[in-house]
Amino acid sequence: MQLRIPGPTPLPNEILKAMAKQMIDHRGPQFAEMIQRATAILKDMFQTKGDVFLLTGSGTGGMEAAIVNTLSPGDKVLVLANGFFGERFADIAESFGAEVLRLRFEWGRPVEPEAVRHALSQDAGMKAVLVTHNETSTGVTNDLASISAVVREYEKLLIVDAISSLGAIDLPTDAWGCDVVVTASQKGWMAPPGLAMVSVSERAWKANAVAKMPRCYWDFAQAKKFLEKGQTPWTPALTTLYALAAALELFQQEGLANIVVRHTRVGAKTRQEVKSLGLSLFPEDSCASNTVTAVNALEGLDVKKLLQILREEHNIVLAGGQERLGGKIFRIGHLGYVTETDIDVVMKGLKMALPQAGFSG
Amino acid sequence: MQLRIPGPTPLPNEILKAMAKQMIDHRGPQFAEMIQRATAILKDMFQTKGDVFLLTGSGTGGMEAAIVNTLSPGDKVLVLANGFFGERFADIAESFGAEVLRLRFEWGRPVEPEAVRHALSQDAGMKAVLVTHNETSTGVTNDLASISAVVREYEKLLIVDAISSLGAIDLPTDAWGCDVVVTASQKGWMAPPGLAMVSVSERAWKANAVAKMPRCYWDFAQAKKFLEKGQTPWTPALTTLYALAAALELFQQEGLANIVVRHTRVGAKTRQEVKSLGLSLFPEDSCASNTVTAVNALEGLDVKKLLQILREEHNIVLAGGQERLGGKIFRIGHLGYVTETDIDVVMKGLKMALPQAGFSG
Repeated sequence: MQLRIPGPTPLPNEILKAMAKQMIDHRGPQFAEMIQRATAILKDMFQTKGDVFLLTGSGTGGMEAAIVNTLSPGDKVLVLANGFFGERFADIAESFGAEVLRLRFEWGRPVEPEAVRHALSQDAGMKAVLVTHNETSTGVTNDLASISAVVREYEKLLIVDAISSLGAIDLPTDAWGCDVVVTASQKGWMAPPGLAMVSVSERAWKANAVAKMPRCYWDFAQAKKFLEKGQTPWTPALTTLYALAAALELFQQEGLANIVVRHTRVGAKTRQEVKSLGLSLFPEDSCASNTVTAVNALEGLDVKKLLQILREEHNIVLAGGQERLGGKIFRIGHLGYVTETDIDVVMKGLKMALPQAGFSG
Repeated sequence: MQLRIPGPTPLPNEILKAMAKQMIDHRGPQFAEMIQRATAILKDMFQTKGDVFLLTGSGTGGMEAAIVNTLSPGDKVLVLANGFFGERFADIAESFGAEVLRLRFEWGRPVEPEAVRHALSQDAGMKAVLVTHNETSTGVTNDLASISAVVREYEKLLIVDAISSLGAIDLPTDAWGCDVVVTASQKGWMAPPGLAMVSVSERAWKANAVAKMPRCYWDFAQAKKFLEKGQTPWTPALTTLYALAAALELFQQEGLANIVVRHTRVGAKTRQEVKSLGLSLFPEDSCASNTVTAVNALEGLDVKKLLQILREEHNIVLAGGQERLGGKIFRIGHLGYVTETDIDVVMKGLKMALPQAGFSG
């Protein structure tokens, strides 16, 4: 099966094998060695000298963790929202009592750094900025370098959902001054879902010290205390960690720079081939993501039918649109364990399935 | 390796194999079939007609979920605490703003139902009772049948940490009127850690409708909405779910009654053999758990040394004591994939290692 949704992704055989290992004591020396090595490689991949923690949960759990560890009820936060996951970030912050200002951009358009500057200049009381690096729902990568420069200028806390970017798209956490960065094992990491990975800067620790949102399971201070002895506060998803630890060895072998180049290449190829089928991209090329491509359902194209035909007749699984984009786009995931050959398979399937689903190009 | 801590537990070979499967679309038909079947079997094992949800997280995450879904800040709750995990339950409730009354019992002694009755009769404003069914830290199984009868009499919400009991020790959720019951995949379930499983009664849903503790990731209402379409709100720990789904098939083959009998038998054998080595149990026999046996470090016995010798020379992993019990007890886990033969191996190792660790019996 060609599973080409934006996560979970197919796994290399050596990762599948790594998962078939027996359980070990999560408070023993073997575990300590594994988590310490995995964390060290992760720090390289996050490009940070700060803390990095492995939390058992989905990416959304990691987003919740980022919020409850750094903010207090009543804190004003600016959420940069240009898609489904930006809105989710805002929803979580609101659930925990933050006063959220949603700076919205059209879905499919990128966040505009100048608009962020304007918003921050209007309200000195803003505590933090929450941003989605790669908006999985629309296939847009936001210009985090420019956004972070603005946020640093105004000295706000910068909390980044990098769930579908990190490990595939360049994100120098420290160089860009990102305070909490969240990613998840099933995205760029060639591992199954079940772990969220978060980085925590010195500034984030200072915010943590006074943050009053209630927390227990996601508490970074507990994670830090236990990691010092090579443990996690609560029993972790061991099998998922076996997989991630094995995948991180592959990351180190390939090298982050090469991995980013591979995703850039595969992303460009995907966009080009989609256009050559007579289709158009949902976002503009200039902000199109190298991990997920969102394609417009041009006139006549029945997305639901297309996905069903691909799944049932060609063994290819793509994703539809979320929420307001349901039926309007479909999405091709190309992150993690992916090369040009995989895209060739997808395009071959699309070429056959598109006419059956009402699109003749 | 004989991993005999109270979870994670060793896994049968067919479960290890089940984990080495490729990823699938967690929003697709194959996933829907898997989660719906797993949930149906889980309901049988919980002995409930209520809802059962699979949450990606550890057991502690499940405890947090139980609390934040049913309570509001300021709610008075009675926590029955006779060990490390009872205290944790209270700590979580306090973190989220509950007004917690800890009804404490000596560690190693069971919760006394009459004391619960007294406490409830003294304070009509109590909203819920939180109790640990099987206290993993002390090897005590509380008399939940009697406790639940008292709680029902006073019409309080009953929230049960059954993390290390359910699936191994009888717990008829509906018959005993338990409103939220929490367990975790790495305990009795022959699966790796990474999933918490929770049941939710009608009364719990009524509490949920007015519960004001902040929640997003753990939200039961979201879990219910998505399960209706065969999904989870957030990407679940797929590999762990593959394992649990396969383990639940084994559960159904063996039958819950037989599984409970097996644990009863293995528990009794463990206690008997421990005594025949000249050691004594930490709790009294009458409340001793059938999933974990806590053994006193009688005079001369160096627990740390014992565990190290067992690990390094005999390939047997047991657990030490937690918190105030550090150095005072050691614990043998016998839950999930366990038979008498496994206990024989442990006892053989203990017989050799005990004198080396200072205990001559």
